[in-house]
Amino acid sequence: MSNRKYAIIGTGAIGGFYGAKLQQAGREVHFLLRSDYEYVKQNGLIIESKDGNFTLPQVNAYQDVTKMPSCDVVIIALKSTQNHLLSQLLPPLIKENTIFLVLQNGLGTEADVAQIVGNNPVIGGLCFICSNKVNNGLIRHLDYGYIALGEYRDEYQKMGITERMRDIASDFEKAGVPIEFSDDLLLAKWQKLVWNIPYNGLSVILNARTDEIMGNPDTRFLVEELMAEVVAAAKSYGRIISDEFVNKMLYYTEKMTPYRTSMKIDYDEKRPLEVEAIFGTPIRYAAQKGVNLSKIEVLYRQLKFLDKLRCRGD
Amino acid sequence: MSNRKYAIIGTGAIGGFYGAKLQQAGREVHFLLRSDYEYVKQNGLIIESKDGNFTLPQVNAYQDVTKMPSCDVVIIALKSTQNHLLSQLLPPLIKENTIFLVLQNGLGTEADVAQIVGNNPVIGGLCFICSNKVNNGLIRHLDYGYIALGEYRDEYQKMGITERMRDIASDFEKAGVPIEFSDDLLLAKWQKLVWNIPYNGLSVILNARTDEIMGNPDTRFLVEELMAEVVAAAKSYGRIISDEFVNKMLYYTEKMTPYRTSMKIDYDEKRPLEVEAIFGTPIRYAAQKGVNLSKIEVLYRQLKFLDKLRCRGD
Repeated sequence: MSNRKYAIIGTGAIGGFYGAKLQQAGREVHFLLRSDYEYVKQNGLIIESKDGNFTLPQVNAYQDVTKMPSCDVVIIALKSTQNHLLSQLLPPLIKENTIFLVLQNGLGTEADVAQIVGNNPVIGGLCFICSNKVNNGLIRHLDYGYIALGEYRDEYQKMGITERMRDIASDFEKAGVPIEFSDDLLLAKWQKLVWNIPYNGLSVILNARTDEIMGNPDTRFLVEELMAEVVAAAKSYGRIISDEFVNKMLYYTEKMTPYRTSMKIDYDEKRPLEVEAIFGTPIRYAAQKGVNLSKIEVLYRQLKFLDKLRCRGD
Repeated sequence: MSNRKYAIIGTGAIGGFYGAKLQQAGREVHFLLRSDYEYVKQNGLIIESKDGNFTLPQVNAYQDVTKMPSCDVVIIALKSTQNHLLSQLLPPLIKENTIFLVLQNGLGTEADVAQIVGNNPVIGGLCFICSNKVNNGLIRHLDYGYIALGEYRDEYQKMGITERMRDIASDFEKAGVPIEFSDDLLLAKWQKLVWNIPYNGLSVILNARTDEIMGNPDTRFLVEELMAEVVAAAKSYGRIISDEFVNKMLYYTEKMTPYRTSMKIDYDEKRPLEVEAIFGTPIRYAAQKGVNLSKIEVLYRQLKFLDKLRCRGD
C-alpha cells in the first residue's frame, strides 16, 4: 500500500469530500481551510453521503500553506473564481515529484498551475459529482462521484495514461471513488463543456431547470447550437466530439431528474460564478484558433453582468 | 382642410393616443376596440399627456370591423402579437384609395398588410413615443411622440416621399404630432432595430434598465456587438447605417434617464412580447440574404422561452 500524503487546497464541496474519503481510507491528508478553519480544527469533518455517512473527528487543518508538511499529491480544489490566489498558495508546496491534481470545472487552470509549478507534474481531474458544503465542516454528497483523470503537459498535448495517474487512481479507488482514465485531457475537458456551457449558462440566465430548458423547443434548439459551437472549438484543437456523444448528452439530460445546475446553485446562493473557467477561457482558446464562439459569447457577457450584479461577497 | 376619415384598428397606447389626437383636432375618427369597448362607448377616451390632458366624452366605438364606415386612412395599431387577426380585420375596410398606415414595432407587418390589401397603398410609421394604456379608456402619454413615415411597396423598395405621406403628415401635424419623412422605410426600420434589438432584448432577459446595461462593460460590449449584427443585416439589403448613427444611439442611451423598455413593460405586465416582429422577422430577412445573426438569435430563443413561460393571457 502506498504511503502517499495528500494536501487539499480548498476544503469545500469537492476538496472536503474527496479529502475526507482519502483520510477515511487510511491516507494521510492535510486540509487547507479558510472560513471554517477554527471550527474544523476543533470538530473535524462530517460527510453525509448517499454512499454512507461518516465523521472524521480529527483532521490536519491549516490556514497557512507554509505550515503544511511536504506532500506527494496537492489537490487544487478551490473554486476557479479563487485562482488568482494560486500563485501565492502553490510555491511553498512544490517539492521534488509533488504531483498537482486540479479538480476544477472548465478550461485552463492546469495550464496556469503548470506555469507556477514548473517541471512538477500536473494532472487534471473532471469531477462528476453533486455535492455541497452545507455548513462549517459539513459536506453533503448527493449523487455521482467519479473522477476522470488526464495528465497535463504543454498546452494540453495528448499524454496517454501515465503511471502517476494509475497511482492516484489506486488511492482514490481504495477510498471508494471510481476513476476513469482519459488519455487526452483536452478532449475530456471539451466534452464536459458540451454539457456545462449550455445548461449552466441558460439555467442562470433564464432561471430554469434542465427539464424546462429541454421542454421548450426554442431553448432546446439553442442548447444544440451552443453544443455545436463547443464541438467546433474542440475540432480547432484537433479533438473530435462525435454527433453520438452530443446526442447522448441531450438524451441523458432529457431523461434525468429535473436538475438545478451547479452554476445556478452558486447564483442562488449569491456565490461568485465560474464564468471565466467555463465560458471566458474556452472562448479565448477558440479565438486563438480563429474560431468565433458567437452564441457562447452572448451567454458569457450576460453571465458576467448577472455575476457582478448578484455576487455579494468574495 | 382635408376631410379624411380615419379608422383606428387597435385602440391601445399607440392607436388610442394618436386617434384621440386626430379627433381632438377635428378629424372624423372611428375606433375598433376589444376589451374596453363597452366602457369607451359609454365614457369616451381620456388622454393624460405631458403636452396637456384632454377628454373625448364621445367617440365612435366599434367591436366589429364590418360595422365601421368607409375610411380614407386605416391605422393598424394592434400589437404585432395580434397580427394573425389582420387577414380577417382588414378586408372589410378596403375601399378604393384607402391608405393602410401601420404603426408597429419591428419588421414585416407592412409586407403582410400589402398581401392582404392588394393594390391599396401601405405606409409604415415608426412611433417614437412612451405611452401606456393604464386603464379602460385611459391612455397616459409620458414622453416623445413623433412618427417617422415611409411608404411601403414591393419588399420595401425605396419609395421617396409621396403625396400620400404629405397628406397624412398634414393631418397629424395639425393634431400636434410631429412627423418626419423617411424616403426609405426599410432603412428607417433597420435603424430603429439598432436600438430595439439590444435594449428590448437584454432588458427582459437580464431584468435590467438601460442605465444598468450601459453601466456594465460586458453588456455594453454585447450591445455594440448586437448593433453590429443589425448593421450587417441592413447592409445585406443595401441599406447603410453609419458608425456615427450607431455611436449616437449609444451616446443617447447612456445620457438618457434610466428607462424601462417597452418590451420590459410588456413582460412585467405579463403581456405577450413582440418577439417575432422585433427579432424573428429580422433574423429571417437577414437569413434570406445569407447573413447569420448569431448573437441576435440567442436573444430570440431566450425571449421565446421567457415569453412562453411568462405570458398568461392572449
